[in-house]
Amino acid sequence: MSAKLTPKGMRDIGPEDMFVREEAIEKIRAAFRLFGYRPLETPAMEYLETLRAKAGPEVDKQIFIIEGGEYGLRFDLTVPLARYAASTDAPKPFKRYAIDVVWRKEEPQRGRFREFYQADPDIVGSASMRCEAELLSLANTICVSFGFQKPRIMLNNRKILDGIAAKLGIEADVKGEVFRVLDKLDKIGEAEVEKLLREILGGKADELLKIIRSKGGNKSKLALAAKYSEEGAKELEEILALCGSEFEVEVDLFLVRGLGYYTGPVFEVKLSDDIGTVMAGGRYDSLLGIYGQPAPAVGISVGIERLVTLLAERRKGAGKKTDTKVLVACVKPDFYPDSVRTAAEFRKAGVACETDLNDRNIRKQLDYANSLGIPFVAVIGEREVKSKSVTLRDMASGKEEVLPIGAAIDRVKGG
Amino acid sequence: MSAKLTPKGMRDIGPEDMFVREEAIEKIRAAFRLFGYRPLETPAMEYLETLRAKAGPEVDKQIFIIEGGEYGLRFDLTVPLARYAASTDAPKPFKRYAIDVVWRKEEPQRGRFREFYQADPDIVGSASMRCEAELLSLANTICVSFGFQKPRIMLNNRKILDGIAAKLGIEADVKGEVFRVLDKLDKIGEAEVEKLLREILGGKADELLKIIRSKGGNKSKLALAAKYSEEGAKELEEILALCGSEFEVEVDLFLVRGLGYYTGPVFEVKLSDDIGTVMAGGRYDSLLGIYGQPAPAVGISVGIERLVTLLAERRKGAGKKTDTKVLVACVKPDFYPDSVRTAAEFRKAGVACETDLNDRNIRKQLDYANSLGIPFVAVIGEREVKSKSVTLRDMASGKEEVLPIGAAIDRVKGG
Repeated sequence: MSAKLTPKGMRDIGPEDMFVREEAIEKIRAAFRLFGYRPLETPAMEYLETLRAKAGPEVDKQIFIIEGGEYGLRFDLTVPLARYAASTDAPKPFKRYAIDVVWRKEEPQRGRFREFYQADPDIVGSASMRCEAELLSLANTICVSFGFQKPRIMLNNRKILDGIAAKLGIEADVKGEVFRVLDKLDKIGEAEVEKLLREILGGKADELLKIIRSKGGNKSKLALAAKYSEEGAKELEEILALCGSEFEVEVDLFLVRGLGYYTGPVFEVKLSDDIGTVMAGGRYDSLLGIYGQPAPAVGISVGIERLVTLLAERRKGAGKKTDTKVLVACVKPDFYPDSVRTAAEFRKAGVACETDLNDRNIRKQLDYANSLGIPFVAVIGEREVKSKSVTLRDMASGKEEVLPIGAAIDRVKGG
Repeated sequence: MSAKLTPKGMRDIGPEDMFVREEAIEKIRAAFRLFGYRPLETPAMEYLETLRAKAGPEVDKQIFIIEGGEYGLRFDLTVPLARYAASTDAPKPFKRYAIDVVWRKEEPQRGRFREFYQADPDIVGSASMRCEAELLSLANTICVSFGFQKPRIMLNNRKILDGIAAKLGIEADVKGEVFRVLDKLDKIGEAEVEKLLREILGGKADELLKIIRSKGGNKSKLALAAKYSEEGAKELEEILALCGSEFEVEVDLFLVRGLGYYTGPVFEVKLSDDIGTVMAGGRYDSLLGIYGQPAPAVGISVGIERLVTLLAERRKGAGKKTDTKVLVACVKPDFYPDSVRTAAEFRKAGVACETDLNDRNIRKQLDYANSLGIPFVAVIGEREVKSKSVTLRDMASGKEEVLPIGAAIDRVKGG
């Protein structure tokens, strides 16, 4: 029966992976809150009209549409924010975060899923470059909290790219295609990008590539960029000055971000060339206008799936299967009520614990503790009931001690 | 443009409500983990075949079906568990929790939504009544953690109800209808239940009502119940003995739980007659067999929406709008980089803080802090930059002090 199957391109996330995932989400949420971002949750589905307003009707192919054709599942967390922001009277800037699932009906491939998490902090209601600098600082904080001390933070500006395109006489309708090709660099490599650009632009491809490939420090790149957009270069200077000495930011004129709706600075965070992009975003000052209330906005999307994978890989072998610290076992079923009472005392002290729900002998209870990696077993038998104590077994060393319950709680908490 | 609207029967949950909701979810998750339940997350959608296996094709009306007719959005968290449990080799008992959204295409009405949270701990792989007792203890722990010291915990057994139906000669196909009517007691009241039962059962209605309405303590009810199902009564006795003196459980022969799939004990937790049921569940030993791997199972569903509403009502007026403790304001834009550096120090000390992203004068910065209820503003001007200090303003009292940054951090943390 196919009913046993998980839907195509989706997955079940079992306990071991979930412990890592919940920890990762908690870390990211803590960083968002540390910077004063406030939570907003919106429904999984939106009117198709709302979804199309941002991405056009061609996005329908990518959307899971609900039967009846009125609703579709959200494909990002930005559209719901834009819809909400158009109706809220929250104080400006409205700094919101959302950590939630989105759906895309792409052909499933290795490592890519049709349902995945995004974690987005966005700022609505400020045109200042202070926002960009804050989001990059937040991104850096998250990387560091995951143990990556030196993320590569790359910065560009759509205004500069637009300026270059204008100077080279690239038509507006071709420009979108060019940007999409540039954005594929990570996936298809530089040679392929070159080839595709030549097909689209002919001789102009080389001119374009010469400009955006220019090497050197941020200063020389910005001097070059200023020839195409003074405003764009000045915005980046402001951002760089505010990021200051706290962390490094690298101007990369090759950086595009594929989505058409960015209007100003765009950025990307890589942990290494190997791992690739884990966060990306930019300014989108025109999007909210579509939803009836024009306001500047800027945001970054944290690729939580990749961070979770990295965290899980690092934990390999050390991943926990359970939070339970103690299995309160009983020598005979007669003592089960005593083990329940003892477990209640452990729990009152904040110690996660379990009792034997399967009426098993003591050997099998120890097997269960072993199979989940539960570190302690507190055995309850006649002697223990009489003396209000437990025999506490340290499962790693095999060492056993008879202890009053209070002392056993202390031992487990200390261990 | 309808794109501004939230889908029918659904809702946006803004920051103030989200802070309460995240706190409630955290409390519930902590309780699940304290009892050794392990997290499992499954996709939002399942094959329609999977969903129908539990509820039959008539459930289609209630399901949001994805265009193409292959998938539907889950309507509970039990079906995904049953599908998953049939394929996992996790140690038994498999104690899992899930806290997630489900969808039902009901006609929206006041206080009922088409998308809502459930929080379910379930136990797969044990037929022992120890499981029921543990789930009731967990339910009691959650109620207490929300400040409800004396929840009403009600208990019955489908085996007893089946026994009564058999003795009264109620046909199998009528029984389901009778159970559904009994389950409506809370909604339609006792007089209406009586009326409907008479329509279905004629004279037998009074016999049935006489039995299930019987008053008295648990002992006398169980003695009566034993006449119809010795096994059912014995199971309840076991559960009651294990719940012991920790909390009270009340046998209620009227209790049914509408869902057809329960096979043994069923239970319901009420906080008051006014608030109604906040948790409900029971044993469903036949469900997993449908998914190819027969195993006993029992669970309870925590109605998180109602708990969140209760928590929010209690906080009325005291609900927080933000986690931010300090707005680091600057007297002139020149000092903004200094406010960024100061904010970084607050954050390093774990203090959530913000800077002014809108280039506003100091009065407007204070207004912003006020509008969000941010308790402190740390003002940075020329004097403060020179002396590496801040002027810390307590927004409630209006009191200001010039403090070195370290002392300001201590003050904010202490306050």
